[in-house]
Amino acid sequence: MSAGIGSSDPSSESAIGFRNPRIQRLRRLVAERSERRSSGLIVVEGEVLIREALSARWRCEEEFVAAGAVPVTNGTVHAVAEGVLDRVVSTESARPHVALFAVPEPTSVADSSTVLVADRLSDPGNLGTVIRSAEAAGFDAVVVTPGTVDDLSPKVVRASAGSRFHVPVSEMPLDALREAGFTLIASSSHRGSAHVDTDWAGPDRLALVLGNEAHGVDPDAPVDGWVRIAHGGRAESLNVAMASSILCFTVAQGRGLL
Amino acid sequence: MSAGIGSSDPSSESAIGFRNPRIQRLRRLVAERSERRSSGLIVVEGEVLIREALSARWRCEEEFVAAGAVPVTNGTVHAVAEGVLDRVVSTESARPHVALFAVPEPTSVADSSTVLVADRLSDPGNLGTVIRSAEAAGFDAVVVTPGTVDDLSPKVVRASAGSRFHVPVSEMPLDALREAGFTLIASSSHRGSAHVDTDWAGPDRLALVLGNEAHGVDPDAPVDGWVRIAHGGRAESLNVAMASSILCFTVAQGRGLL
Repeated sequence: MSAGIGSSDPSSESAIGFRNPRIQRLRRLVAERSERRSSGLIVVEGEVLIREALSARWRCEEEFVAAGAVPVTNGTVHAVAEGVLDRVVSTESARPHVALFAVPEPTSVADSSTVLVADRLSDPGNLGTVIRSAEAAGFDAVVVTPGTVDDLSPKVVRASAGSRFHVPVSEMPLDALREAGFTLIASSSHRGSAHVDTDWAGPDRLALVLGNEAHGVDPDAPVDGWVRIAHGGRAESLNVAMASSILCFTVAQGRGLL
Repeated sequence: MSAGIGSSDPSSESAIGFRNPRIQRLRRLVAERSERRSSGLIVVEGEVLIREALSARWRCEEEFVAAGAVPVTNGTVHAVAEGVLDRVVSTESARPHVALFAVPEPTSVADSSTVLVADRLSDPGNLGTVIRSAEAAGFDAVVVTPGTVDDLSPKVVRASAGSRFHVPVSEMPLDALREAGFTLIASSSHRGSAHVDTDWAGPDRLALVLGNEAHGVDPDAPVDGWVRIAHGGRAESLNVAMASSILCFTVAQGRGLL
């Protein structure tokens, strides 16, 4: 038998309501980056993503389940009154399972040889897909520069399909990456070598940089080179999510990551 | 001066309301595939997509603009009362411009040498991205098999970022493609040759087949070969949209499309 509701926490014997302080904290954690940073906690929504977090050995602090649902974790479980979780989660569809997880300490890129850099990406869906591409292509880590949308927001975690739990993500500016010995190659819509003609195997430590949706990587950014994806059709044929899939797998092939 | 509201259609001198038959037809065209098929018309939402359709030389039948907005096309224009278009369009954000376009006659794949096949894709966002990938990679055409979500739905057109206007899309079953002389290579999550080791240049006529989100391409489908994208991470690391970007550009490189 899995742990039943209430068996691990006497306080959850009756379903808690919308005004309960635990529910209000969940709401703040869903909405506010500052709350996530100060507490070191994030809200994971839905059974599939909760199982991904557990499989990546993230530590579940508390689980909240709609009345009658079977808990997914074996930690402290709170039964929640009907309709309450629908008002808390970031998705429109009802999620009978919501869990609080502790965010692991950020790791440094000291041991990484291939990283993907999201430079001031603003769309959560794009950042999630970029993280997913990097994980699938065997990159060691993802770096976000200051100004990028929060990689721990529920929308990013969901768009990453759980990849966020499996790949380390840290925040640092581009020049700090160069000081750490990385060769920075930035994606551009119009300048640089063709991605299929680039020497991806050359640099000992490679950072592939993808830029903001509207502005790209700053032309004056401290990078070592530029790469573009030759394409047909119109000028704006590719978005950053598509570019990340194409480039990550080209880099993976060039560097023998897979 | 661009054509003012009412200048090209006396009936639009006063803003039309929600119960106007033209508005009701718009609603049906947004919602119903059968209405689009029987009329040969689609609704294009928003100024950016309308301009894409015009640049692809699709024929605009009528334009509907919120009161006070400047028309984008030079065809027949109807001014619409405030708030009415918000109840018609498929997106939550208000769109001051909506236009009816005639769908060109479907072209055959007789003159195509490289096509992408969407085999029973069910998600409009995925089909839109697949079409966008195919166009950007220089494919000649897209084929959808029976059972695929309607490629003319507003959600697909929007997800394609207008690529739907620039690449011919036709519906046919896989065996008809084989009879037309295409070599069919289907994407799989687990079988076939690695995509980077596949002889993409070999077939005179190549059809790359991407399958349904949940079930993939039927293992018994009449295809000539299978290809898989080697990847790290977990089993479900890639979705069909990401796979389309990676595979289309690998095919483009192998066949010299760009």
